Amino acid sequence: MTDPDTGRVEAFDAVDVIRAKRDGGAVPEDALRWMIDAYTREYVSDAQMAAFAMAVLLNGMTRDEIRVMTDAMIASGERMSFEGLGKPTADKHSTGGVGDKITLPLAPLVASFGVAVPQLSGRGLGHTGGTLDKLESIPGWRAALTNDELFAQLRDVGAVICAAGTGLAPADKRLYALRDVTGTVEAIPLIASSIMSKKIAEGTGALVLDVKFGSGAFMRDVERARELARTMVELGTDSGVATTALLTDMNTPLGLAIGNANEVRESVEVLAGGGPADVVELTVALAREMLALAGQPEADVEEALRDGRAMDTWRAMIRAQDGDPDAPLPAPRETHTVTAPSSGVVTRLDALAFGIGAWRLGAGRARAQDPVVHAAGIDLHAKPGDEVTAGQPLFTLLADDGARFARALEAVEGAWEIGPDAPTPAPIVRERITG
Amino acid sequence: MTDPDTGRVEAFDAVDVIRAKRDGGAVPEDALRWMIDAYTREYVSDAQMAAFAMAVLLNGMTRDEIRVMTDAMIASGERMSFEGLGKPTADKHSTGGVGDKITLPLAPLVASFGVAVPQLSGRGLGHTGGTLDKLESIPGWRAALTNDELFAQLRDVGAVICAAGTGLAPADKRLYALRDVTGTVEAIPLIASSIMSKKIAEGTGALVLDVKFGSGAFMRDVERARELARTMVELGTDSGVATTALLTDMNTPLGLAIGNANEVRESVEVLAGGGPADVVELTVALAREMLALAGQPEADVEEALRDGRAMDTWRAMIRAQDGDPDAPLPAPRETHTVTAPSSGVVTRLDALAFGIGAWRLGAGRARAQDPVVHAAGIDLHAKPGDEVTAGQPLFTLLADDGARFARALEAVEGAWEIGPDAPTPAPIVRERITG
Repeated sequence: MTDPDTGRVEAFDAVDVIRAKRDGGAVPEDALRWMIDAYTREYVSDAQMAAFAMAVLLNGMTRDEIRVMTDAMIASGERMSFEGLGKPTADKHSTGGVGDKITLPLAPLVASFGVAVPQLSGRGLGHTGGTLDKLESIPGWRAALTNDELFAQLRDVGAVICAAGTGLAPADKRLYALRDVTGTVEAIPLIASSIMSKKIAEGTGALVLDVKFGSGAFMRDVERARELARTMVELGTDSGVATTALLTDMNTPLGLAIGNANEVRESVEVLAGGGPADVVELTVALAREMLALAGQPEADVEEALRDGRAMDTWRAMIRAQDGDPDAPLPAPRETHTVTAPSSGVVTRLDALAFGIGAWRLGAGRARAQDPVVHAAGIDLHAKPGDEVTAGQPLFTLLADDGARFARALEAVEGAWEIGPDAPTPAPIVRERITG
Repeated sequence: MTDPDTGRVEAFDAVDVIRAKRDGGAVPEDALRWMIDAYTREYVSDAQMAAFAMAVLLNGMTRDEIRVMTDAMIASGERMSFEGLGKPTADKHSTGGVGDKITLPLAPLVASFGVAVPQLSGRGLGHTGGTLDKLESIPGWRAALTNDELFAQLRDVGAVICAAGTGLAPADKRLYALRDVTGTVEAIPLIASSIMSKKIAEGTGALVLDVKFGSGAFMRDVERARELARTMVELGTDSGVATTALLTDMNTPLGLAIGNANEVRESVEVLAGGGPADVVELTVALAREMLALAGQPEADVEEALRDGRAMDTWRAMIRAQDGDPDAPLPAPRETHTVTAPSSGVVTRLDALAFGIGAWRLGAGRARAQDPVVHAAGIDLHAKPGDEVTAGQPLFTLLADDGARFARALEAVEGAWEIGPDAPTPAPIVRERITG
């Protein structure tokens, strides 16, 4: 049919594509590619795409449809290539969690083995923080790089954490904003194609996915997280990117720091060979997967944390983006510490509640245009399994404005428990899913 | 939450309402009323309503939800009342078919028994014709009446067929246009609430629904038509309107005329005591239902066709809207007759194909703003069950432009058959559904 406004001949009709998915069928490849392309051109309206997205959420998509949809979203924008680098590339994507600063130690750690890590990241929204927000705590550090700067830094330093350009998968950008307001965020084919279109367009050779489940994760239950992980691993594999996923527990915050500057500090501790056990465990597990996919299955990851190689790469990475790795990080104007009311063992400390608490203190944002307070957040002094005595500090709220403490305390009320018996210890990494 | 643009406090969040329906639950009454009201105010966007409509299509709605949704759409506009008339009111709605001119003889027939018939109608789109388009074949006749004119004519003549005002159920008008482009037309709760919101807002005391199934109907299969009929009967009953539905066959065009002027001519034949048997059968059946609901179960409907009472009311009704019931109707400039290639019995004559044929001749419109050609259409000379001899006229195409014949002939090619044996006769009215 011909568009009466533009005179352009359209190969398909959006209503036919919507109906095919609505009635439970698979959408033919050329029709699905057309749908995404026509949506990018704004020939297909938001209302039509919203109806389509709801039909996808309720009726699902085949593995082949998900691959085609992802490929069409990649085709809507530019596609990067790191082939000229002369070294392998590996990237990591996390579905987001509370206290998840893993990218910060992970990227320089992996890069210290000669693997380029192009970590194109985003900002946080809601209770899960954003990697760029955390790094912007470092005086001078800038998130925006040109493609030339990105390439040069990958070549010279090996690790880059920077803002994803707007040129990658613009169809996804529009679709993501639409899903957010139409109750269609939770469709696994759409989540998978959204994440993977950006990662594949970015041009990485290998990809490790940290798919989280639990109260602080996007996916509450492990079954849905497993389905998402499988879908993304299949999609990466089908698209020629070596992809592995780890299913990891996000019922408790990662590490002891939730916020921005405090998460940078904790990351530096890990790079110095210390840091909380769970952060080290997950950093090491993900680094091993990335290095294995990049051809170094035997790499001694822990040694690179102990001997300072990872730290050297971190410092070079921060400096390359005009940050000062030695400058003091911003400190909060006010703090409020909660102490243990009784002696015992911490049995529960809920990720979602503490994520919301940190968010209310100013560490996160409610709207995309809001700033974050870099010094705001929560420092934990004990985690589940740790013994505490009555009166000992349990956690400290950090803020620039003491008026924020009341609502943050409300958020964490009832979200932690002290009991007589230690909870059964559980590993962070629960499953490994390969293509 | 507060709308940042208007400062208005909104009681619900559209995403929550969409999610409730998406996840298979019933939307609480106050949330559903808010959704329709906020959509009318354009606070809820087309994209959000499209996602909601798709969730309704795939997950359904309870009887209670359909009643609330309908009531909310009625509340979005004005509501008429005929209580001051001093006589009962009865209305008929057809889901649309090919050759369906039944409203034309039916309204004056029922009104001739002292029951007011406020038949607020629409124009045709696609292969099913519109009652107003047909009546506009009559020189001078006008479809638009003020509410005062409508009331006066109902009081003095008893029957009115006129254009529905834009003030009735404006939410439905917006939602209907949205469904049309988002693949959500076929949701039975949405079809039922769309039809019934206008009929209930119109203020009729009794309503008879002609729900058609078959190739020329909106619902192809009888099961879906039955579900729609039941849903609408429940909805009318729950809303205090005495409602009955007839399930009627639309695999073959109704009567011998498909078009506009020719359908008026056939209607006048019925009002004169003649006309094709199927048109008379359906007109009489619907009139009996309307009169029964209006308190006259024993009315002798056929007598009113024979003795001229219905015809007198027709003439008064046409004159009241400035039409001349004696003026010649427009005649086509060109005709093309197809004759029987062999002798035998007509075994099949497909409603959809002949509807499309008439549409291509100019009797219908492709876009709402297009005019129709009043003289265009198809006159059938034989129907299924009729014997024909080779060379006898089967049907005649009517057009103002002979260039239209080729594509109309394409439409009806293979859509009729002549065989040795008569098909099993089937009644038009297949089922009767009451509240």
